[in-house]
Amino acid sequence: MSARYERVALIGLGLIASSMAWAMRRGGLAGEITGYARSAETRDIAREIGLCDRVCDSAAEAVAGADLVVLCVPVGAMGAVAEEIAPALAPGATVSDVGSVKKAVIEAVAPHIPEGVHFVPAHPLAGTEYSGPRAGFAELFDNRWCLVVPAEGSDEAAVSRLEGFWEGLGANVERMDADHHDLVLAVTSHTPHLIAYTMVGVADDLRRVTDSEVIKYSAAGFRDFTRIAASDPTMWRDVFMTNKEATLEILGRFTEELFALQRAIRLGDGAHLHEYFTRTRAIRRGIIEAGQDTAAPDFGRGPKR
Amino acid sequence: MSARYERVALIGLGLIASSMAWAMRRGGLAGEITGYARSAETRDIAREIGLCDRVCDSAAEAVAGADLVVLCVPVGAMGAVAEEIAPALAPGATVSDVGSVKKAVIEAVAPHIPEGVHFVPAHPLAGTEYSGPRAGFAELFDNRWCLVVPAEGSDEAAVSRLEGFWEGLGANVERMDADHHDLVLAVTSHTPHLIAYTMVGVADDLRRVTDSEVIKYSAAGFRDFTRIAASDPTMWRDVFMTNKEATLEILGRFTEELFALQRAIRLGDGAHLHEYFTRTRAIRRGIIEAGQDTAAPDFGRGPKR
Repeated sequence: MSARYERVALIGLGLIASSMAWAMRRGGLAGEITGYARSAETRDIAREIGLCDRVCDSAAEAVAGADLVVLCVPVGAMGAVAEEIAPALAPGATVSDVGSVKKAVIEAVAPHIPEGVHFVPAHPLAGTEYSGPRAGFAELFDNRWCLVVPAEGSDEAAVSRLEGFWEGLGANVERMDADHHDLVLAVTSHTPHLIAYTMVGVADDLRRVTDSEVIKYSAAGFRDFTRIAASDPTMWRDVFMTNKEATLEILGRFTEELFALQRAIRLGDGAHLHEYFTRTRAIRRGIIEAGQDTAAPDFGRGPKR
Repeated sequence: MSARYERVALIGLGLIASSMAWAMRRGGLAGEITGYARSAETRDIAREIGLCDRVCDSAAEAVAGADLVVLCVPVGAMGAVAEEIAPALAPGATVSDVGSVKKAVIEAVAPHIPEGVHFVPAHPLAGTEYSGPRAGFAELFDNRWCLVVPAEGSDEAAVSRLEGFWEGLGANVERMDADHHDLVLAVTSHTPHLIAYTMVGVADDLRRVTDSEVIKYSAAGFRDFTRIAASDPTMWRDVFMTNKEATLEILGRFTEELFALQRAIRLGDGAHLHEYFTRTRAIRRGIIEAGQDTAAPDFGRGPKR
């Protein structure tokens, strides 16, 4: 099954969509790329930088005749967009998305997908703290994971074809069911983001430590948090609103463990702390061995060379 | 005042001491470098890699005749080391340290400093997640901050000379009092580390998500936490045991804010979340403008090129 589509429509033209456009060009994966964004300003920028072959003024116009439609809007907007484009979808087309939450997206989108159109949800695990049509670059998905989450009764040929497409964009592809996806992401991404946001907010609130001090001395641990906490607010609001159950479960466990460590600090239980910190160190080694990061010592360093 | 010392003794030969040794060589800042570590294995490695001009078998031997002695041991070991070397310190020498906590170090070390010896505590804000004598490199302190925290009644000439020395090692130097230092570090470093340790521990505990999944899909937020959570367990145990008050205060605020966000998630209060995330994004911009990090989009990416 070919990884190439004749016409790919990107609905929403932010970081992920714009990176997909450049990566499709690089890989020769699309005959024509059409695009639509709700904001006229975003459409104008997309036209100015030549992001798509055609930037359309309505989502329906963009999806007409497309054999692949990718919804690249915040998770909370997926349902409305699906409803809007449904009448214009070509028979046999595949509709996919790039949302960070899968169960809620499937619930919102699936009811609008017409008979004869395939719905194959997906989630590329890649991003930066930048957003908008200018933020994309062709290499964003290289060597990153793309999780494909087929809805019940998905057409196998349509699923494999989309998997080949994502491999063409540079990603490693795995299949996962929606519930498990949402739990794994709550652990590896959603809860860490919420925690980073919180810590950055605390620092900003503290009157006795000025913002300039926080910024100046941020190398030692805090800097990595601010990078995470700079991600797109709308996207992350929707993630927490739609992956509520799994995020709250992981947050509950996190608070429990944090209280145990806090108690160890208060009681001066050094053995407990040392044992805990030794265990977490081993996990980091696993990540380096899995090739998801380098061992180069760059934490807390100055501008990268 | 010259930044150069005739003989510098490094007590403890881990990441910071070994980086200091290479940076001193690079800058021509020491006539002779002596070193001591409690572990015979560490001393052997230091000899093998030529870290110091002389690696001694006792701390007293290493400090004899030194005009600068730098305590590079975990914060909890500073007092005992100071007591041990006190009789061997040369009149007019400066004793300094590199501990991440300053109030507790001053309380532990100052009583042992003999009349005629200057005690000038300091804290270079630099590190990696690696430890030991092989972990050091000359560039570790380049463009990082070194906070100098003079104890009450410190000799101004001794303080300025040490400041010049740290500038020679590549650092930007600022003075701060001990209480403020400990609070600033609790915000920018100690609490973020504890939180990262906790989150990594939670992920490891969760039975329904395997460690290999956590590792595989760690790009999206979690990876930065694991890097932080891989730091030296002994050093960090001591930090929390000795900066207890400030860390517990910041943890209390953190928990309060986290509960407010958790409540917003539970109640579906998207406006609260969006407003919070927008505010934290601005802080990140400040850090990039302050030159403490680059704007290059590398978060969540594969092995660095």
